[in-house]
Amino acid sequence: MEKFENIERKNKELINLNPIQTGGKLTKPAQKALVEFGNGYSIYDISPGLEIMEVPLIKEFIQEALPKFLGADIVRIVLGVREGIFNIMHSIIKPGETILVDGNRHYTTIIAAQRAGLKVVEVPSSGEPEYKINVEDYEDLIKKHKPALVLLTYPDGNYGNLPDAKKLGRIAKKYKVPYLINGAYTVGRMPVSMKELGADFIIGSGQKSMASSGPIGILGMDKKWEKTLLRKSKIYPQQEIEFLGSELRGTAIATLIASFPTVLERVKNWEKEVEKAQWFSKELEKLGLEQMGEKPHKHDLMFFKADAFYEISLKHPRGRFFLYNALKKRGVTGIKPGLTKYFKLSVFGISKLELKQVIIAFKEILETA
Amino acid sequence: MEKFENIERKNKELINLNPIQTGGKLTKPAQKALVEFGNGYSIYDISPGLEIMEVPLIKEFIQEALPKFLGADIVRIVLGVREGIFNIMHSIIKPGETILVDGNRHYTTIIAAQRAGLKVVEVPSSGEPEYKINVEDYEDLIKKHKPALVLLTYPDGNYGNLPDAKKLGRIAKKYKVPYLINGAYTVGRMPVSMKELGADFIIGSGQKSMASSGPIGILGMDKKWEKTLLRKSKIYPQQEIEFLGSELRGTAIATLIASFPTVLERVKNWEKEVEKAQWFSKELEKLGLEQMGEKPHKHDLMFFKADAFYEISLKHPRGRFFLYNALKKRGVTGIKPGLTKYFKLSVFGISKLELKQVIIAFKEILETA
Repeated sequence: MEKFENIERKNKELINLNPIQTGGKLTKPAQKALVEFGNGYSIYDISPGLEIMEVPLIKEFIQEALPKFLGADIVRIVLGVREGIFNIMHSIIKPGETILVDGNRHYTTIIAAQRAGLKVVEVPSSGEPEYKINVEDYEDLIKKHKPALVLLTYPDGNYGNLPDAKKLGRIAKKYKVPYLINGAYTVGRMPVSMKELGADFIIGSGQKSMASSGPIGILGMDKKWEKTLLRKSKIYPQQEIEFLGSELRGTAIATLIASFPTVLERVKNWEKEVEKAQWFSKELEKLGLEQMGEKPHKHDLMFFKADAFYEISLKHPRGRFFLYNALKKRGVTGIKPGLTKYFKLSVFGISKLELKQVIIAFKEILETA
Repeated sequence: MEKFENIERKNKELINLNPIQTGGKLTKPAQKALVEFGNGYSIYDISPGLEIMEVPLIKEFIQEALPKFLGADIVRIVLGVREGIFNIMHSIIKPGETILVDGNRHYTTIIAAQRAGLKVVEVPSSGEPEYKINVEDYEDLIKKHKPALVLLTYPDGNYGNLPDAKKLGRIAKKYKVPYLINGAYTVGRMPVSMKELGADFIIGSGQKSMASSGPIGILGMDKKWEKTLLRKSKIYPQQEIEFLGSELRGTAIATLIASFPTVLERVKNWEKEVEKAQWFSKELEKLGLEQMGEKPHKHDLMFFKADAFYEISLKHPRGRFFLYNALKKRGVTGIKPGLTKYFKLSVFGISKLELKQVIIAFKEILETA
């Protein structure tokens, strides 16, 4: 039983390039909020006697701060991006209908559609090396399949590609198809506005990109979906059926709120994050690696092809795990163990000094392995 | 923006009788795990290179420790009891079908059924003062409505009544109706075995009764439901459709694991918790309050009727909020502000010494208000 009590992370002192983790580090205020609201249901202590959604701080956060932040009319807290996607699919689409998604979509988009009983048609990417989604390709498929929803992963979680979401907004409007943006890697990292992109829905991830503990996400919507997505129970007229009543049960909401001011500021630095990513990409390419996905890259999440590491792995006593171990020895983690030829990483929030250490690590490994 | 960063609890130094909070206080190991895994997705650091469900510690917890603890064949981590109830309803019942639930069910049981498009028939309680659910009453309604599921809230969250769950198991078996136990206030507080009660499913709450941060729950099931509830995606054969892939994204799972050894021990003390509840109930009745719900009571969650407080509230300058404030002055919180005549509370995990302070507080308020 002791091992359960002593559950602990590994490698927490290392530079961590794992794309699902770089945007989820708690801010100082969120670290405080985490401990303050660690006990189950302690969020209910925030203002005794008020329904949780009526607490002024919560109300202002959900009804004012978040809608403004997302460029949305209405925002709801959800349990994560995948759950938010399912909430929408389950509310506005009938089983058997078809949706149109980008070929770079996250696997949970497919699973959510299957859970909702939907057919899925994919808009293929351009394939290696850029894996670009040309949003104009949606148009013919809209005409052909008459989908009940178009979904765009913006950016995708593999290549960090940012398709032309605004143009897809115009196409969706032209054909009157509801348009959902999976913003797991935009919301909280870069400026993004649902309205400006012409979308009906946008979903962000607390744990992936809003410096929050999880599981939590935020779902922004156009007010025209209020009656559908926020349909109320007749028996409990305060309760939204699709969200099973209040979702504010945990620690994550406190960290999301406490990190929010920092998140609001950090998206203003996005250009610097992009410059840093482009610089890092160039440095790795100087070493012979090849950055896949769009170039010049416009996001901190990047995918690399590294034939040289693959060659080494074929002869190395630790085989395909050599790279993970060699990086770890040099203070770097976050690239999936076992990968050598293709891997993704993120430089979000990592200083240039630390990234120089990463570059030196790659260089040394290439030279000495 | 500062107010978001400084989000904080109130009354955290007081004795807290709130039934949704007494079982959710983190243990010391869980407090450590909370901080260790506070960052979003940091659970993925636990064992780099393994799928999260393949990490030996996680595997042992979910595949061995929890099934044994629940008396279930298979256990899945869910996002909460309401989500677990919906998972079952959405997987094993067709929209339009009828389910049979106890009249003391939580409001989210109704909302989940509405979300799944089900009809709900309720088995009424005996009403004031005991609000007893006589499980034999399920039988006629099963014959009449041929429900696709029977659900029992065990105990309910208002009166803390423990109906004869085992007898309902025999009835469900006789009519071959799937049987779901909402164990939000049993699992983690008292010994309970799904198999012994003859149920197909049982769901427990991390934040309500397993000393965990939330949102998290555990869903135990009979293996005969594996193919239905755990149906896999053909495209992603590892992924369970109903659970949208892995649910292990947050901080809560780490606290659930770290608290588990303590939880396993504490359920052995259940008789003492019941004795304490009965003693507390008698002491309040000596003051003129009336305990509603089953008597002698078999659970820490209790409902009281207090005409005397109601009478005071009619004349008190603070009106119906006087009781909340008067208790707070005396170091006690957790009874809903504004309530005087009827209120619920829980004595779980609260020492007799602290409860004496609560009793004295009630006494003083009655004498001086």
